[in-house]
Amino acid sequence: MSTGLALAIEDDNPLLASDFCAEMVKQMRALDTYDMYEKWSVARILSPLVLTKERKAEIPVIGDPDDITMSRVKAYYNAIASLIEKQSEGLMAVPMINLSHEGFGRAIITIGKLVVVDKTLRDVHRFGFKSLENMHEEATKIVDAAVERLNKYREVAEL
Amino acid sequence: MSTGLALAIEDDNPLLASDFCAEMVKQMRALDTYDMYEKWSVARILSPLVLTKERKAEIPVIGDPDDITMSRVKAYYNAIASLIEKQSEGLMAVPMINLSHEGFGRAIITIGKLVVVDKTLRDVHRFGFKSLENMHEEATKIVDAAVERLNKYREVAEL
Repeated sequence: MSTGLALAIEDDNPLLASDFCAEMVKQMRALDTYDMYEKWSVARILSPLVLTKERKAEIPVIGDPDDITMSRVKAYYNAIASLIEKQSEGLMAVPMINLSHEGFGRAIITIGKLVVVDKTLRDVHRFGFKSLENMHEEATKIVDAAVERLNKYREVAEL
Repeated sequence: MSTGLALAIEDDNPLLASDFCAEMVKQMRALDTYDMYEKWSVARILSPLVLTKERKAEIPVIGDPDDITMSRVKAYYNAIASLIEKQSEGLMAVPMINLSHEGFGRAIITIGKLVVVDKTLRDVHRFGFKSLENMHEEATKIVDAAVERLNKYREVAEL
């Protein structure tokens, strides 16, 4: 996939200042073994997560995810786990991602013995969102649902 | 690891007729892509899971698990999941194994949103048990604890 020179996110997008984006950038940097992102802007770091129509058209329909794509998937669920943790009053949220074949798999986040996030992954090699707004919205939905489940079944989360 | 000619399990070990061993053999066969086990006795199929002192001494202390070892680990947790499922009154038990590096990782089994088994894996490249009795005992403990948790938090398992 060529990311081209044009970014899919404007540098002045107000969402870049959101808790989710801040956490997402932190997680992307944590997985950036080669310090590639050191001098990059936040918009540039997050830009590959936005799959515009043009970008999507460049990726084959069937394929195996490469390491860079996998690190984005991990960063995404790590960021979500971290945001859930902030609302968990001292409990630890642990992400776990499993790929079976050709980009199919399962991503879960557990707190104690409670599964607070449980997503079937499909076409991981094409992982991405229509827009920054869309990514933010999806992540927020997942976090909110997880916190709701946590509060409802806190006894299991404390096991 | 050379398994040698001598089996670590006697062909007439009564435990070979247990539910766990029957399930374990079934799972080993399911992962046996090359039909290697087709004409093997049950004792011979399960023998590599018994790590006698002599066998253990042949395996380096630090290492990455190979595909054959990983398929044994998978068969073990698949067998446990299957036995739990038999006592779950219609719910599905799903195993998930994640290795991080050098044989460290986590094996979980979920039913609905309840984690019924949660094991930290260490030295997976040396996966095995002192004896067939030991493997049977460990597996039975895990199954019993899982079924107890399932019965206690059935509401979460039904999510």
